[in-house]
Amino acid sequence: METEHNLIDSGRVNGTHVFGSDREQIGHIDHLMIDKLSGNVAYAVMNFGGFLGMGEEQHPLPWKSLRYDTSLAGYVTDLTKDQLTGAPERVSDWSRDRAYETRLHDYYGLAPYWL
Amino acid sequence: METEHNLIDSGRVNGTHVFGSDREQIGHIDHLMIDKLSGNVAYAVMNFGGFLGMGEEQHPLPWKSLRYDTSLAGYVTDLTKDQLTGAPERVSDWSRDRAYETRLHDYYGLAPYWL
Repeated sequence: METEHNLIDSGRVNGTHVFGSDREQIGHIDHLMIDKLSGNVAYAVMNFGGFLGMGEEQHPLPWKSLRYDTSLAGYVTDLTKDQLTGAPERVSDWSRDRAYETRLHDYYGLAPYWL
Repeated sequence: METEHNLIDSGRVNGTHVFGSDREQIGHIDHLMIDKLSGNVAYAVMNFGGFLGMGEEQHPLPWKSLRYDTSLAGYVTDLTKDQLTGAPERVSDWSRDRAYETRLHDYYGLAPYWL
């Protein structure tokens, strides 16, 4: 069963391609950020490689905005290019800034991973 | 607040020390295994480095058996040495073997991460 084969070494997630809902590649995962207490993946820090014309190359996406697609061997997001390019600008030390994290989840319309 | 600082780069988890309930180090995390679909960390593959006299150096621990201790800057498990050394032997291709995964969770008395 497919559902029996869903484990992946966290290091091997890095570099995995990410596709838009049109199945065009929009970037790849640079690394994951894990919530140490819950053990849940909180963010995939994406590298867009200038593909979207974003000022920042790296941008955290809430993990819930991605789903794995076995046929693409990568992650797919339903977020649009406009949503991605209009996202709140990443602040320095963003992963310790709950206000930024809240803005980001609000922006994407996703429930925060910590609630 | 402490709860605001719980994110960690998945790559930086590798090498983190793991302590027994007596706060003695028993090994370190070699890598994490993530359930691609849920985005939850399923296992920490531990390296015991012969510390417990285990035949195998590496052994997957259900992630739920570990909790982060900020004062130790590492993970603590309540599993005893006897529990660890008596665990079901790892089968080849274990991460695709739900029967083994089920045995492992049963053995440790933990609910499977996939339910």
